[in-house]
Amino acid sequence: MDLVVQKYGGTSLGSAERIKAVARRVAGAHDAGNQVVVVASAMADTTDELISLAKQVTEYPDDREVDQLLSTGEMVSCTLLAMALRSLGYQAVSLNGAQAGIKTDSFHRRARILSIDPHRITRELDSGRIVIVAGFQGITEGMDITTLGRGGSDLTAVALAARLGARLCEIYTDVEGVYTADPRMEPEARKLADISYEEMVELATHGARVIHPRAVEVGQVYRLPILVASSFSNTSGTLIKGEVDLEARNKVRGIADDRDVAKVTILRVPDRPGIAAKIFEPLAEAGISVDTIVQNASVERFTDLTFTVSRNDLARALGLVEPVADEVGARGCTHDATLAKVSIVGTGMASSPGYAARMFKALYQAGINIELITTSEIRITCIIAEEQVQKAVRTLHRAFELEKPG
Amino acid sequence: MDLVVQKYGGTSLGSAERIKAVARRVAGAHDAGNQVVVVASAMADTTDELISLAKQVTEYPDDREVDQLLSTGEMVSCTLLAMALRSLGYQAVSLNGAQAGIKTDSFHRRARILSIDPHRITRELDSGRIVIVAGFQGITEGMDITTLGRGGSDLTAVALAARLGARLCEIYTDVEGVYTADPRMEPEARKLADISYEEMVELATHGARVIHPRAVEVGQVYRLPILVASSFSNTSGTLIKGEVDLEARNKVRGIADDRDVAKVTILRVPDRPGIAAKIFEPLAEAGISVDTIVQNASVERFTDLTFTVSRNDLARALGLVEPVADEVGARGCTHDATLAKVSIVGTGMASSPGYAARMFKALYQAGINIELITTSEIRITCIIAEEQVQKAVRTLHRAFELEKPG
Repeated sequence: MDLVVQKYGGTSLGSAERIKAVARRVAGAHDAGNQVVVVASAMADTTDELISLAKQVTEYPDDREVDQLLSTGEMVSCTLLAMALRSLGYQAVSLNGAQAGIKTDSFHRRARILSIDPHRITRELDSGRIVIVAGFQGITEGMDITTLGRGGSDLTAVALAARLGARLCEIYTDVEGVYTADPRMEPEARKLADISYEEMVELATHGARVIHPRAVEVGQVYRLPILVASSFSNTSGTLIKGEVDLEARNKVRGIADDRDVAKVTILRVPDRPGIAAKIFEPLAEAGISVDTIVQNASVERFTDLTFTVSRNDLARALGLVEPVADEVGARGCTHDATLAKVSIVGTGMASSPGYAARMFKALYQAGINIELITTSEIRITCIIAEEQVQKAVRTLHRAFELEKPG
Repeated sequence: MDLVVQKYGGTSLGSAERIKAVARRVAGAHDAGNQVVVVASAMADTTDELISLAKQVTEYPDDREVDQLLSTGEMVSCTLLAMALRSLGYQAVSLNGAQAGIKTDSFHRRARILSIDPHRITRELDSGRIVIVAGFQGITEGMDITTLGRGGSDLTAVALAARLGARLCEIYTDVEGVYTADPRMEPEARKLADISYEEMVELATHGARVIHPRAVEVGQVYRLPILVASSFSNTSGTLIKGEVDLEARNKVRGIADDRDVAKVTILRVPDRPGIAAKIFEPLAEAGISVDTIVQNASVERFTDLTFTVSRNDLARALGLVEPVADEVGARGCTHDATLAKVSIVGTGMASSPGYAARMFKALYQAGINIELITTSEIRITCIIAEEQVQKAVRTLHRAFELEKPG
């Protein structure tokens, strides 16, 4: 008997009616002869409501308590889904992170899964039950509840699928799959039938919100195929997998955009060894994720150092960096929270020159100024003014002919 | 250092503002040099909202899943209270039933506490923390979440206080203590300074909702004093304890009323051994709690058998009893859900005759018909028409001169 892991996002579980619709879908997978494990997110808006409740009590809620609080959101949706399945005549049981054996480290709000003890899940499956697991949460060795950070339920699903030896992990969401660009930005965006792990990691890291990049990385490590599809329709979705036919398709696979970009520049930093560490260590300790780092060529032993963070982290980042800038004798800091980034991604790019030039030229011809550039093997990212991001996406979609099947 | 256990009910925790007010109270107990364990109920209405959510998904939600669902209510209020204490500068940690080591049997929705493993709580207290424990919930040996039934948080508080060796268990609620009658019914009702365990069990069992009778019973077993007081004021409350001065006070201590009464009568039951067991076994198996049972004197080997249940259970009780009535050859069943009961309670009653007669006479003179009568050592209960219950309470309050200090 095949084992399938399905994950449903918060929008798919946003009301009693939607939960019942998801139950019918899950039942269908069970009827098809599979053992089924479902990972559920909290019902839409629940997490925001809980955070808002915490903020009414205190401006700076403690991370350990926030995790204990947020974990209830997934427990609620899981029990409701189990009830809905039972009312359809199926045996189903909901498990929270602790019951499902999901052990994590103790970095609250951004914990990492250390191991999964599958005994309880396996026992429930073997007794014929559909198992509903609370996504996004785990438990430390000391029995404290942790959460896995943004996109954590995707990670729970893929990690469980890998641990249990599932043949497929299905991520059901409110979009129909992975597109060549965000369809709200570019009406001509085309759904991809498949995409490689590497490409998906790059797209997801740089703005495509359809699946969390850490989940794709885990899928890649375990060579586990991941299907991204809509919970509201029966269209085919996009399969994320290892081998995608490289030759027969356009080498740019997709465009990602991300408006959650804030830039900090430290002006006239003395160019001495150890300065960069001094600046970035406090950010790392504070759990602030730094995205792009650019250091200009040194002029007369001074340099400008620019990095980007998510907008939520800007105030905290400035608070940490400004004293260090003073201390090391820099001229000061500037910042800008009106930026966005646009990225082109494609495995073929690594081996073919000319993509960067084509990208910069297309943006230039559209009158879009590039503030920063960063690249990976299979991605080129430009940071531009936020107000130009839709124009940039549409310009690049046309320039790389993404509307045409690859 | 003394250890105090405080329990706060849902109304006391009904909003962010109220949670902050409770935090200040808890902080006060800590400032006074006590180690403090707080047991919190779910915020007012939360449990009802969760039940209503479950009912939107299925008419008959599974008990195991309901427990997993309801347990989130107390987790939310506990984390918020811990956050509020931290924002006041106190070290505080919230623990759910599993983390607090509260082990129960596996009868969902009405589990009983089997044992409490105090290690985690003791460790947190020893490190200077205020410990906030989720009331109403526990965990089975198999790691399934259970709830303790109505009033379960009171039980959690008293059981924890007993296990941890607290000198006092404080139950904070939205009333100022235990009254001679419900003050909404009888404006002349008087707050009692103290009351015995036995009296409190009878009052609570027969309608006084200020504390759950099981909690009082546990207090009695461990000779643990329980203070019932208001979380909204600083008045002195009522102390439930073992030794109350018997001579110096009126022998009726209080009047309880309860409108949640439904009566089932099985007509013309053959008077054979084993019939009563046949009727009540299915009710017990279905978890329906039968309150009063009255069997009339047998006439020509037939008898009428009457019992009362809570109104919520009436339909299920009839469904179980009607087939049995048919099977044993009774004439049929009647039922009435427009009844209420009124009880007088007092330890002194056991040794002094005449209380029953005084009660019946007072009700008769007020034109109130008595449908059923039951008694214990320290209680006399009359079942009457619901519409007459307030009149009955006021009549009895006057008849036994409860407005006068005892």
